[in-house]
Amino acid sequence: MSDLQLASDGRLRHLLTLDGLPAPVLVRLLERAEALVPHAHGGSGMRAALAGQAFCTLFFEASTRTRSSFQLAAQRLGMDVLNFDASTSSTRKGETALDTLRTIEAMGVHCFVVRHHEDGAVAALAAGAAGQTVLINGGDGRSAHPTQGLLDMLTIRQHKGTDFSRLKVAIVGDVRHSRVARSDLHALRALGCGEIRVCGPANLLPQDDTLRGCTVTDDLDAALDGVDVAMTLRLQRERMEDGLVPSLEAYYRDYGLTGARLARAKPDAIVMHPGPMNRGVEIEAALADGPRSAILRQVANGVAVRMAVMLELLGR
Amino acid sequence: MSDLQLASDGRLRHLLTLDGLPAPVLVRLLERAEALVPHAHGGSGMRAALAGQAFCTLFFEASTRTRSSFQLAAQRLGMDVLNFDASTSSTRKGETALDTLRTIEAMGVHCFVVRHHEDGAVAALAAGAAGQTVLINGGDGRSAHPTQGLLDMLTIRQHKGTDFSRLKVAIVGDVRHSRVARSDLHALRALGCGEIRVCGPANLLPQDDTLRGCTVTDDLDAALDGVDVAMTLRLQRERMEDGLVPSLEAYYRDYGLTGARLARAKPDAIVMHPGPMNRGVEIEAALADGPRSAILRQVANGVAVRMAVMLELLGR
Amino acid sequence: MSDLQLASDGRLRHLLTLDGLPAPVLVRLLERAEALVPHAHGGSGMRAALAGQAFCTLFFEASTRTRSSFQLAAQRLGMDVLNFDASTSSTRKGETALDTLRTIEAMGVHCFVVRHHEDGAVAALAAGAAGQTVLINGGDGRSAHPTQGLLDMLTIRQHKGTDFSRLKVAIVGDVRHSRVARSDLHALRALGCGEIRVCGPANLLPQDDTLRGCTVTDDLDAALDGVDVAMTLRLQRERMEDGLVPSLEAYYRDYGLTGARLARAKPDAIVMHPGPMNRGVEIEAALADGPRSAILRQVANGVAVRMAVMLELLGR
Repeated sequence: MSDLQLASDGRLRHLLTLDGLPAPVLVRLLERAEALVPHAHGGSGMRAALAGQAFCTLFFEASTRTRSSFQLAAQRLGMDVLNFDASTSSTRKGETALDTLRTIEAMGVHCFVVRHHEDGAVAALAAGAAGQTVLINGGDGRSAHPTQGLLDMLTIRQHKGTDFSRLKVAIVGDVRHSRVARSDLHALRALGCGEIRVCGPANLLPQDDTLRGCTVTDDLDAALDGVDVAMTLRLQRERMEDGLVPSLEAYYRDYGLTGARLARAKPDAIVMHPGPMNRGVEIEAALADGPRSAILRQVANGVAVRMAVMLELLGR
Repeated sequence: MSDLQLASDGRLRHLLTLDGLPAPVLVRLLERAEALVPHAHGGSGMRAALAGQAFCTLFFEASTRTRSSFQLAAQRLGMDVLNFDASTSSTRKGETALDTLRTIEAMGVHCFVVRHHEDGAVAALAAGAAGQTVLINGGDGRSAHPTQGLLDMLTIRQHKGTDFSRLKVAIVGDVRHSRVARSDLHALRALGCGEIRVCGPANLLPQDDTLRGCTVTDDLDAALDGVDVAMTLRLQRERMEDGLVPSLEAYYRDYGLTGARLARAKPDAIVMHPGPMNRGVEIEAALADGPRSAILRQVANGVAVRMAVMLELLGR
Repeated sequence: MSDLQLASDGRLRHLLTLDGLPAPVLVRLLERAEALVPHAHGGSGMRAALAGQAFCTLFFEASTRTRSSFQLAAQRLGMDVLNFDASTSSTRKGETALDTLRTIEAMGVHCFVVRHHEDGAVAALAAGAAGQTVLINGGDGRSAHPTQGLLDMLTIRQHKGTDFSRLKVAIVGDVRHSRVARSDLHALRALGCGEIRVCGPANLLPQDDTLRGCTVTDDLDAALDGVDVAMTLRLQRERMEDGLVPSLEAYYRDYGLTGARLARAKPDAIVMHPGPMNRGVEIEAALADGPRSAILRQVANGVAVRMAVMLELLGR
């Protein structure tokens, strides 16, 4: 996939996955995003950057949060925004996803964020897109959510500095079904993270090579011991319906991130969650709202990261 | 609630309800709105006012009309608009309303209109919002719809002048379930309205102190006798399904506002309705479209009022 | 209807149908659109044209493609865009379509594209609209889709020149239920098209005077023989459910446009489709993507045509 997203001269053509993205490209994106933080939360400072260009959120799977973050990023760069809800549109009428993309391209839109429920769907669209079109993967299946991975890395850098080799990071929860976790793992490895620990019940951990190089455990206390960063993942309600989780109470008891359990982490450890949160399921409410929580910082960084990616892809 | 929405220096921090809002603040908002009327219907005159800021319509209950009015008001002040439909979003996934609000805040959005089906929900959000965030209640439960109250008062002022003590106003219909009526009653009392009459079937009138100081009757002719303003309310279809109304025909016969019945009002009396109208149920079609109807003026004033509130709240 | 859309001085007041639209007006719109093509696909060149004005997409029937094209056209002219989804709004609450229109008018919106499932619904709204309001029919029932007709004519002109008298055009498929076909037929006749052939199964062809002046056949080979343009129509899935089509396979065999069948057309014949396509039903995938396909050109022209119509209607 990296040849589809990375031109031979190192230019990023699409952002499909963090898997295989060279560390220098990743760091460049993070540095760009850091520089954009002051412009990411309003103001008119960057309005001229992409003025007159159009940006389309093309979502084959609903997501108001991610769509909103991309929309605000595009508006702050001066772009026109078209929100194309493909879950209630022509796609329903039998049109292929690629025809939907090509149709909007033909209207003069050349920058897209695409979310799709199928693994690889965004890469498939990138393969069929017009030459000047740039695609950002806004989440596909369980595979990748690269801007989430980038915003997580930016958040860690802001709190812990740029040398990831000194860091211990724990990822807790349903890694098996999580595109967020996969993108975080790719990024943490690329940035040379000192130790990556993954913790969750065995049936919510992937069986493939997703966890290569990670310390894997089902003991949360062991996972959190001495970490700098504790990331917990959203538990989808359907996991319980599917019988993968005995009860929300049992899950919270065994894998819920709480202030008490975080006592094992470093004193300045931060807590992260990609949202939306199930308070009292994967995270204690007081911890989510407390001084060690970087959760809203993650959200804020999301806008800066998305601005950086758009500027990078559109060659500005 | 007034301490939540009103700072000790008299500055409006949020607009949650007209209940307890001091008359001078109310009059200041109406005068601001009046001055904005020329800019409220297009044109670029006020585009610089809030340029670069973002405005979010955060609706936990659908309403295209109110949302559209707020959206146009924000656009005419130069703001970016994010329409966040919380009825089909993360909220569904178990996220709390406050987490949804905080997430959008973290994206750099500091001005919101919130609609919610529960009484007090918007005030609860205001209590939990970040310091720089301003909230406008776009309607919560049966409690309040303050911008509707303001636009109704602006409409009355435009037709009848600023001295409300000389006015007789009749409110007709389902006051019990109406947040519009509650906001109108608060505003009319604050502005010293000479006489407020409330008319409806007993089971559609509130039993609490909502109607304090009002003349209450179930006789429409008596209610309309000599009034300057006749406001009728929308009859929700579910009232009939709930058995609160015997039939739409009977309701129209007893409480429908018609040209014939309006003969009892003052010759220059105006007719108001918050919309959307059920023609032939709570109002006669010819009356709604006739020269005494101020219904579209209400809609037009809504944009000016919402611009005024945003400017007030954002300190411009 | 032409008096409703055409003022006595020849000015276009609304665009409701191409039926009866004088050829000079039609040609003027096409020439305007042609000139706008360079501005229709992004850039800021036309942003001042309608800056400060508001445009509303008022759709009583869902259509993301058409709505998106209009939205982009309006944004590129500098307008504020309000997307009013009337299929999930007040209309549901018993409000009439005209009251919905008047309400948005009262908010200072004077330019609308309206889509409605009923024949004549848009003209009825135009009859009741305020004096300064301009309406564009974005598709009503089976009657008309005039901007689609215009963009099809623009596409033909770009490929085949302005002299339509030398052209043979085939329209293939479900003409009976197609507002696109009706608008194309009106336009082709107005522009003096040399020969119009219509081909489809008898039960999908209209029985009224829609096909006056056309050569009608159920033999696709005969229809395509020597044509300059082959337009095929979308086959709605419900046609099969209604028993009007025996099977998609049979339909494709008899009426599907393929490269092999197109061998009978002129060597430089172009292929058109209004979208969204059912590949393998009404058109062969390879043909749709091939060098003779003008399908994406149609989409691109749609934005230019819609910009031209807005400028014409708003008197710029």
